[in-house]
Amino acid sequence: MGYLVDPWKVVEEGLDETRNLISESLTSIGNGYIGMRGNFEEDFSGNTHLGTYICGIWFPDKTRVGWWKNGYPEYFGKMINAVRLMGIHVEVDGIPLDLHHVPVLDFHRELNLKTGILLRRFTVQTPKGSVTVQVERFVSLSQKELLAISYAVTPHFDGRVVMKPYLDAHVKNQDSNYGETFWDMLTEEENEDSLALLTRTKDNPFDAPRFAVGSAMSCWAEGLEMERRTLRSGYVEVSYEGAARACETVTLEKYSLCFTSRDHEEKELTTYAMRAASRAREVGYTKLRAEHAGAWKSRWAACDVSIDGDDAAQQGIRFNLFHLLGTYSGEDERLNIGPKGFTGEKYGGATYWDTEAYCLPVYLAVAGQDVAKKLLRYRFLQLDEAYENARKQGLSGALFPMVTFTGIECHNEWEITFEEIHRNGAIAHAIFYYTVYSGDQDYIQQNGLDVLCGVARFYVDRAHFCIRKQQYMIHGVTGPNEYENNVNNNWYTNRIAAWSIELFYTVAGKVPTERKALLGITEEELSHMRDVVSHMYEPLDEDLGIFVQHDTFLDKDLMPADQIPKEERPINQHWSWDKILRSCFIKQADVLQGLYFLGHLYERDVRKRNFDFYEPMTVHESSLSPCVHSILAAEIGYRDKAVKMYQRTARLDLDNINNDTDDGLHITSMAGSWLSLVHGFAGMRTVDGLSLEPFLPDAWQSYSFQLLYRGRLIRLMVTGDRATVTLLEGRPLTMSLCGKRRELKTEISQMIEGKCM
Amino acid sequence: MGYLVDPWKVVEEGLDETRNLISESLTSIGNGYIGMRGNFEEDFSGNTHLGTYICGIWFPDKTRVGWWKNGYPEYFGKMINAVRLMGIHVEVDGIPLDLHHVPVLDFHRELNLKTGILLRRFTVQTPKGSVTVQVERFVSLSQKELLAISYAVTPHFDGRVVMKPYLDAHVKNQDSNYGETFWDMLTEEENEDSLALLTRTKDNPFDAPRFAVGSAMSCWAEGLEMERRTLRSGYVEVSYEGAARACETVTLEKYSLCFTSRDHEEKELTTYAMRAASRAREVGYTKLRAEHAGAWKSRWAACDVSIDGDDAAQQGIRFNLFHLLGTYSGEDERLNIGPKGFTGEKYGGATYWDTEAYCLPVYLAVAGQDVAKKLLRYRFLQLDEAYENARKQGLSGALFPMVTFTGIECHNEWEITFEEIHRNGAIAHAIFYYTVYSGDQDYIQQNGLDVLCGVARFYVDRAHFCIRKQQYMIHGVTGPNEYENNVNNNWYTNRIAAWSIELFYTVAGKVPTERKALLGITEEELSHMRDVVSHMYEPLDEDLGIFVQHDTFLDKDLMPADQIPKEERPINQHWSWDKILRSCFIKQADVLQGLYFLGHLYERDVRKRNFDFYEPMTVHESSLSPCVHSILAAEIGYRDKAVKMYQRTARLDLDNINNDTDDGLHITSMAGSWLSLVHGFAGMRTVDGLSLEPFLPDAWQSYSFQLLYRGRLIRLMVTGDRATVTLLEGRPLTMSLCGKRRELKTEISQMIEGKCM
Repeated sequence: MGYLVDPWKVVEEGLDETRNLISESLTSIGNGYIGMRGNFEEDFSGNTHLGTYICGIWFPDKTRVGWWKNGYPEYFGKMINAVRLMGIHVEVDGIPLDLHHVPVLDFHRELNLKTGILLRRFTVQTPKGSVTVQVERFVSLSQKELLAISYAVTPHFDGRVVMKPYLDAHVKNQDSNYGETFWDMLTEEENEDSLALLTRTKDNPFDAPRFAVGSAMSCWAEGLEMERRTLRSGYVEVSYEGAARACETVTLEKYSLCFTSRDHEEKELTTYAMRAASRAREVGYTKLRAEHAGAWKSRWAACDVSIDGDDAAQQGIRFNLFHLLGTYSGEDERLNIGPKGFTGEKYGGATYWDTEAYCLPVYLAVAGQDVAKKLLRYRFLQLDEAYENARKQGLSGALFPMVTFTGIECHNEWEITFEEIHRNGAIAHAIFYYTVYSGDQDYIQQNGLDVLCGVARFYVDRAHFCIRKQQYMIHGVTGPNEYENNVNNNWYTNRIAAWSIELFYTVAGKVPTERKALLGITEEELSHMRDVVSHMYEPLDEDLGIFVQHDTFLDKDLMPADQIPKEERPINQHWSWDKILRSCFIKQADVLQGLYFLGHLYERDVRKRNFDFYEPMTVHESSLSPCVHSILAAEIGYRDKAVKMYQRTARLDLDNINNDTDDGLHITSMAGSWLSLVHGFAGMRTVDGLSLEPFLPDAWQSYSFQLLYRGRLIRLMVTGDRATVTLLEGRPLTMSLCGKRRELKTEISQMIEGKCM
Repeated sequence: MGYLVDPWKVVEEGLDETRNLISESLTSIGNGYIGMRGNFEEDFSGNTHLGTYICGIWFPDKTRVGWWKNGYPEYFGKMINAVRLMGIHVEVDGIPLDLHHVPVLDFHRELNLKTGILLRRFTVQTPKGSVTVQVERFVSLSQKELLAISYAVTPHFDGRVVMKPYLDAHVKNQDSNYGETFWDMLTEEENEDSLALLTRTKDNPFDAPRFAVGSAMSCWAEGLEMERRTLRSGYVEVSYEGAARACETVTLEKYSLCFTSRDHEEKELTTYAMRAASRAREVGYTKLRAEHAGAWKSRWAACDVSIDGDDAAQQGIRFNLFHLLGTYSGEDERLNIGPKGFTGEKYGGATYWDTEAYCLPVYLAVAGQDVAKKLLRYRFLQLDEAYENARKQGLSGALFPMVTFTGIECHNEWEITFEEIHRNGAIAHAIFYYTVYSGDQDYIQQNGLDVLCGVARFYVDRAHFCIRKQQYMIHGVTGPNEYENNVNNNWYTNRIAAWSIELFYTVAGKVPTERKALLGITEEELSHMRDVVSHMYEPLDEDLGIFVQHDTFLDKDLMPADQIPKEERPINQHWSWDKILRSCFIKQADVLQGLYFLGHLYERDVRKRNFDFYEPMTVHESSLSPCVHSILAAEIGYRDKAVKMYQRTARLDLDNINNDTDDGLHITSMAGSWLSLVHGFAGMRTVDGLSLEPFLPDAWQSYSFQLLYRGRLIRLMVTGDRATVTLLEGRPLTMSLCGKRRELKTEISQMIEGKCM
């Protein structure tokens, strides 16, 4: 792919325009507030997908095409491209530095994962000689509104350098269906050392919120003079110009800041932005850069995973943690994690079930209980909207959205929005996971119980009683395997529904009567819930000894995925949707997802039989698939398979395995590589206290990682067949290591050891 | 509803703006080339849906929204609003005659079904006194390109009348998703007595054809002087003005003509249109009107259905025949019948399976074999495109489109386009029906065999072999009941597929080897086809003695439709799509559609058991549903039910039964009322020669209708318990009447009689 394997960096040598969209995705940077693809600062007329996004800024796009039906979402929400903050027009002796047009002599692009700094260095040929540019930028981890850029130009001849940093709000979304634009231009302003823009998202007919963004820039140049300023609707620019002697470097520092009406009054936005821009300029690039790099250093101290003996694996997991932590910081409980983060427009930057199903355990362990609780609270805060989603389908209870910004469902495909009701179960499971991991009973009995109640009520109403079979059934669903839809009695959905209802009434049984009264729960309702759970239909095949994916799955033309011709993979890029839907091939874990979530309730041989049956038909064309298989494979002793599946997750984007990294990175599934390593290789289980049962992949010499666990910081190191747990911070703890119950005591010894199986 | 029951007219007394959209639909007129809603000629700022359409003029709208998948259609084809041909701005003493603004004293709108002339008469109040208008228009049955209007204004005071007839190409579709327009304005022209416009449909990225339309108008006024002409982009107008004495009538005659690039060279269109406009003016309104009315008279002579004793039923069937014959005339084999004809934009004016399933038998009997053969040829001419549709799904054979203009599928819902594969069977059935009705073996062995071969190959490839059940299955379909989708082994689909394959190899067995060689058919292929037919899985329930709609239908919460609260009907306007899909309620005949098509293969008690099981769950929210039930009910002796279902079909639009007549008329399902009467009440069967087994509905005194049958014109009259068949034209015939074999001889007696059961 042209990217070097490096434990702490993503390095691209040489500009290959055909892979530029992939490189832009890989070198995206973000700080949980601003995020941007690895676009060039200077003009580029080649293949590029310009993307600068501000977390929580979205627009409700139209969906009411002719075939709209009752219960379909009113709009399709999408994160939108905001002001272009990074732009600088650059010319040397009248030649614009457009790398698509000028000959490129060398090109180096490097994302430093340790410091969060993106660097580019290149030399181009112009009629009068070559010009070298070195540019770096970062979105600050210590001041969320700040993008800082240092842009240095060195002509290798006496030349005239022009640099025109600008802010431009005339941006479009790549995925805009009808070439629509989403921004109203409001005002432009200037003061002594900065320029500002105020923009607001366009009006919409859906009662969805509008957002104002105030952005400002302030610049500092060495070797150049400021010539003039340009302010026009939605655009501000400063022009710098100067003569550079041969091999003399001229440098521009650009500080772009943006504030939004999500945090401040609209009328103050540009004032704040201009003030902050001036201040950034005063502080200066070097100091700001050091603060930012220092913040990344602290982050890594708590969460780094280190792998010895496999640099590719090492790079993969750090790349993934870097992007996860750059997407969501846990500072704002109104925010969540889009499947592509800020690296592309696919999935519209909205919240999916990925957060609960994959990301929450990672944030719990690497960012801590408070951050994870914010993710849970996000759903609690949207409970009213979840009730509204259910009501729109004519159902009771709460249907959390499959895709959302506000809690209201905002995706367009009915086969996803009102059929993938399994997401409610993932939200219940996240509360369960948080509770057993943290030991915190308060959340589940307070906010959590409200959520569980809505989930349980929804599932109870969504099931119907089948007279012929005398059991409750759930018809018309799409399971996690989106390569089928509108199926009946998807085992995973029926199972997670029954489990969620049971979780609710179990917890409800432990809270005071007054708490139950607040929920309006009666004994009759609870008793009906128990009846539904005990008579929930579970499709299974006794001969095969497996759970059946859904009612008629076994009538399909069953065959292993290795019978698909290689040139037809991935099938979603080669086959018609009709062929995919009718095939037996599974996009991502479905029955196995259930055995992963509820693994503590099933024997090993049950998991093994189902794994042996389903995995061969699984094409893993969801990035969320391999990690679950890696963990289950590790559990049932298929270590090679576990490692293979880990590699697919860990380097999915770096190696462009699904041939879609150009669209953006698979942020949420990045969590899967951590899960594979920690839940899979290290065998971490937390349902009944902390337990680790690690093994070392054959090709590795050792690996280690840290966990935040119930107020402690714990480190596991696995070398050869020796597992060493160190209590780095916090009180003593009883845990299980390699199948033995052990005490981690601060006083006597911080370290325990076990022998891996 | 405010409409009078009249055997030959639709009459509205009094202007009720709340029902104006319905009235506009009901008073649509068409001649198989131009069609238009009952809009007012003068300006109207109230509730209206302006609609003037030219047959075969359509545009491919965008469909590639974010979630487009392989095999989804590239575009959504829609018939588009063309030049507004009827418009006249009218003012009296400076007051525009806008019925939304001026007080309306009386209002009468009348569509004469016998003559095809639309008349309006109204009196409005203006500050100086009242003004009476009488206007009539028709689209000529004797010159397809002509719309003629006579507009007479009578002020009841001395006043100044201004009339400005115009052509305006700045029209939009009501259903335009993003407010798009579909026309490029090319040129405007004038000569001594006419003005013209040339427009062309906009460019599109789908290789779909573009159409040019040349329209012209010529006018003649009595009591008014021509003042001036206006020509601007896409708009031409002539202004007439004059002083009218109290109670003196001034009259404008407007002749609008339009020619299209479907029939002529683009560069000649306006020349032709202007010439024809001038000629129309010369001939004059009275003569043109008489020619047109005469043409309708001849039509009615061949096809009228007369009902004595039930004016509502009488009006219904004539209304339906009028609109059917005004939509499709059989002159152009590239045209077909849109479900709404030219009366609205729903269903986009495209071709659906309705044509073969419902309309073909009607045209065969009332318009003749040649017209019906054009409908069959329409599909034959699109066979290559049908192969392409299948190829896009990764399948062999021909998949005729569910919705089309060119043969290429052009609807947007995957659950319809590649799941409703039953339409292929309807197309095969139409060939069969035509063959047994007409006795013409040539068609099925020539063009027909090519079509049947494509259909058979598609079904064979679409089925898969289920190892567990050792039978062929068809998964992932939507049956005729669109209130379910993506079901497995829909009985109707499996059955019609097997029947179609069998029809193909049966006919193929009768043609010379060289003919088979042309199709590339081998013995192996035929043998595999026989295997698929003999092992096709048919879901049935032995206890209930019924065919099962699809694999898991009986697991649903089954209940009769009368348990749905009345205020929730129709469910498609009150329930979420999710609730509808999971319910047991059937939109239109599904198993019963099969027993209707293949009735000759099933015993009466099989039909009865299935009718008894399914009909109570059927909500008939497709306008295509009641007729099939009416016919089956008649067959199994449920005469009251048969009559009730007939009434629903016959007066569906006149009584706005489905609460959607505002969208346009249900043209194709209008065929159903004729089918109910002829196949149902009169018990006509034609599989094995002509057979009639009529009964007389209790409330009727008599009914009669004509049939074109194998070169004969036959009339059936049913009075009391006496059925009389008269051979009006043609050679002698052996037929069955009331269960007895009879000879219809010209020489001895033209008439036979039977006693109804």
